Amino acid sequence: LLPRARASQESIFARMSRLAARYGAVNLGQGFPSDAPPAFLLEAARGAVGRLDQYAPPSGLPALRDAIGADLGVDGADVVVTSGATEALNVLALSLYGPREDGTGDEVLMLEPVFDVYVPQARLAGATPVTVALRLDPGPGGGWRLDLGALRGAVTPRTRALLLNTPHNPTGAVFTRAELEEVVALAREHDLWIVSDEVYDELYFGAPPVALRTLAPERTFTVGSAGKRLEATGWRVGWIACPPGSGGRLAGQIAGIRQQGSFCAPTPLQAAVAAALPVARAGGFYAGLRQEYAGRMALLAGGLEALGVAVYRPGGTYFLTAHLGAAAPDAGRLVESGGVAAIPLEAFAQAHAAPPGLVRLAFCKSRADIALALERLSAVL
Amino acid sequence: LLPRARASQESIFARMSRLAARYGAVNLGQGFPSDAPPAFLLEAARGAVGRLDQYAPPSGLPALRDAIGADLGVDGADVVVTSGATEALNVLALSLYGPREDGTGDEVLMLEPVFDVYVPQARLAGATPVTVALRLDPGPGGGWRLDLGALRGAVTPRTRALLLNTPHNPTGAVFTRAELEEVVALAREHDLWIVSDEVYDELYFGAPPVALRTLAPERTFTVGSAGKRLEATGWRVGWIACPPGSGGRLAGQIAGIRQQGSFCAPTPLQAAVAAALPVARAGGFYAGLRQEYAGRMALLAGGLEALGVAVYRPGGTYFLTAHLGAAAPDAGRLVESGGVAAIPLEAFAQAHAAPPGLVRLAFCKSRADIALALERLSAVL
Ligand SMILES: CSCCC(=O)C(=O)O
Ligand SMILES: CSCCC(=O)C(=O)O
Repeated sequence: LLPRARASQESIFARMSRLAARYGAVNLGQGFPSDAPPAFLLEAARGAVGRLDQYAPPSGLPALRDAIGADLGVDGADVVVTSGATEALNVLALSLYGPREDGTGDEVLMLEPVFDVYVPQARLAGATPVTVALRLDPGPGGGWRLDLGALRGAVTPRTRALLLNTPHNPTGAVFTRAELEEVVALAREHDLWIVSDEVYDELYFGAPPVALRTLAPERTFTVGSAGKRLEATGWRVGWIACPPGSGGRLAGQIAGIRQQGSFCAPTPLQAAVAAALPVARAGGFYAGLRQEYAGRMALLAGGLEALGVAVYRPGGTYFLTAHLGAAAPDAGRLVESGGVAAIPLEAFAQAHAAPPGLVRLAFCKSRADIALALERLSAVL
Repeated sequence: LLPRARASQESIFARMSRLAARYGAVNLGQGFPSDAPPAFLLEAARGAVGRLDQYAPPSGLPALRDAIGADLGVDGADVVVTSGATEALNVLALSLYGPREDGTGDEVLMLEPVFDVYVPQARLAGATPVTVALRLDPGPGGGWRLDLGALRGAVTPRTRALLLNTPHNPTGAVFTRAELEEVVALAREHDLWIVSDEVYDELYFGAPPVALRTLAPERTFTVGSAGKRLEATGWRVGWIACPPGSGGRLAGQIAGIRQQGSFCAPTPLQAAVAAALPVARAGGFYAGLRQEYAGRMALLAGGLEALGVAVYRPGGTYFLTAHLGAAAPDAGRLVESGGVAAIPLEAFAQAHAAPPGLVRLAFCKSRADIALALERLSAVL
């Protein structure tokens, strides 16, 4: 196989889930919920199966594009449906940044700790990932902060795009409007695309995240995920909302490159999501989810703090970061003999080493699982 | 957007389906069936939804890998599940051929008329597609033949792989064992990978297609499709069977690159396919499908011949090629004012112009649709 295939690593999420299953560990690693998706989504899928089973257009079922558009406040013609947000990010990498004539690559700025797939996707697209570290203010009330000076300092004449996630995975940080306005000013100054990964847009515990497209519609591609929104991460229905005003031309070109990757997203599941999005919005589903997860976050964070662990409470996502301490077993030993799967922050490190003992823990798991994980952690810490 | 995104074209299949819907034409263009998938598949999916909704491993659900392995006679550890066969082909392109140090690309031999996505996928991977024309013997008993001399003549020191489909889309040709043995000899002589796209492996009307992996297990990657097998083209469950003997190492590397594209295939649909594959095999589902489609092929081919149209009857797939005559309306006019969507062979042309009036027609459509298409064709021819 080619070096680029030999170099590809098993995803840390898949690896930790595999190890959790092998060792019977509680899986607070990979970000998928313990709970089933809502009944209104499941019923819609059961009804679509047997009715809508053949190819959809590569850009997505028109009903789904319109439902996404209505939900986000954009035109359905500017939406492209993808096989999950991972594909959305990959398609944007292929569309927006690549090799340069001088043999180097377009540079893409991303935040570190960096969501694992951003770096290999940029490389596969022929571009050069450049990470800018978040600052971690330790101590009570501390947390992860955008370092605008560092971001500004990382721009070069080769920079072509900013790839951000807010709420930010793995840290759970939600960037403020003021911070994002500065990001937008920087993007405008250097004429950069913004790729805004907002798959956790409905999962927040304080101020709602600001959608970057509302600040910089002319240059922002928004990535979203039905799997994250509707608790069905295995359904592979994600989306890209393109900047408005091209009359669907941008979406058409992106669909053109997207169809070479997986042709279309799963049709019956697309149809189910199209039916479910307005129901979720009108029925207060997201508010209920936030409330439920705020409770589970408090359970996990409080339990960890009672064990003397420093916790950085997230503003969004269903992850928190916690410092188990430099003497704690590493993530490999923790899953094998401690009975808990966690993602070490070093899995998201690129240019900046992560402190040992710093982990990401998912609280989209059942209260019973969270309690069991706390019990096991108390035994090993 | 980058040139590679701007250059991407709407797929001819999506385009023709879109035009067919717009003009109310009978859609004998894109290859998806009129019939619903079998009840045993649908029931399995309805049962999986609500139970298996979260991420699967990027290589696929273990139960599905094993079911595919059992069906193909390979080890499940050598199987990678993909988001449809399109993704399988794309992942193999990224894994097997790419840019060369000297600034050129690895050359990939493919047969022309060429399935539309092979060429842009090879280019996106940084490789150079090289097409070798099939010979079309006109007249009764004629048809599409492999030109082994031309294939041999196209090999250069840069050739790295042969990408074949048998049964061949768009022509419906099924290559004989003797022909494929010569292909294998050529691949061995020049140490080429073989990518064998066998998505129509169960759809044949004469001798069963020979699976290339049985002739050259050491170098053949087989691509397959649950969508084609089980009449659910929108479900996005395809696969790659790797050469045996690596203890799953090849599959692991390929899964590593595949997870960057769409992370995993839709979990509940994977589970349904895992349950359905042995049922389809044991229950004679494929034999029933062949019998049904043989009847529809006879209906379409006989009807066309009665109109004086030269038909090349396929050995497999659910397509036939037919020469509507140089005076027939072109495919654009045919769908707009003739009420029939067909795919012109020129959509599959690369280095060798296709004769005007030569089209591909799908007969995986209802008998009523086929009869209506014949009626409309008789009006315009
Ligand atoms: C696509 S697998 C990763 C799932 C996820 O969002 C996470 O665990 O961070
Ligand atoms: C992936 S769209 C093409 C469907 C198909 O196999 C065909 O029509 O040839």
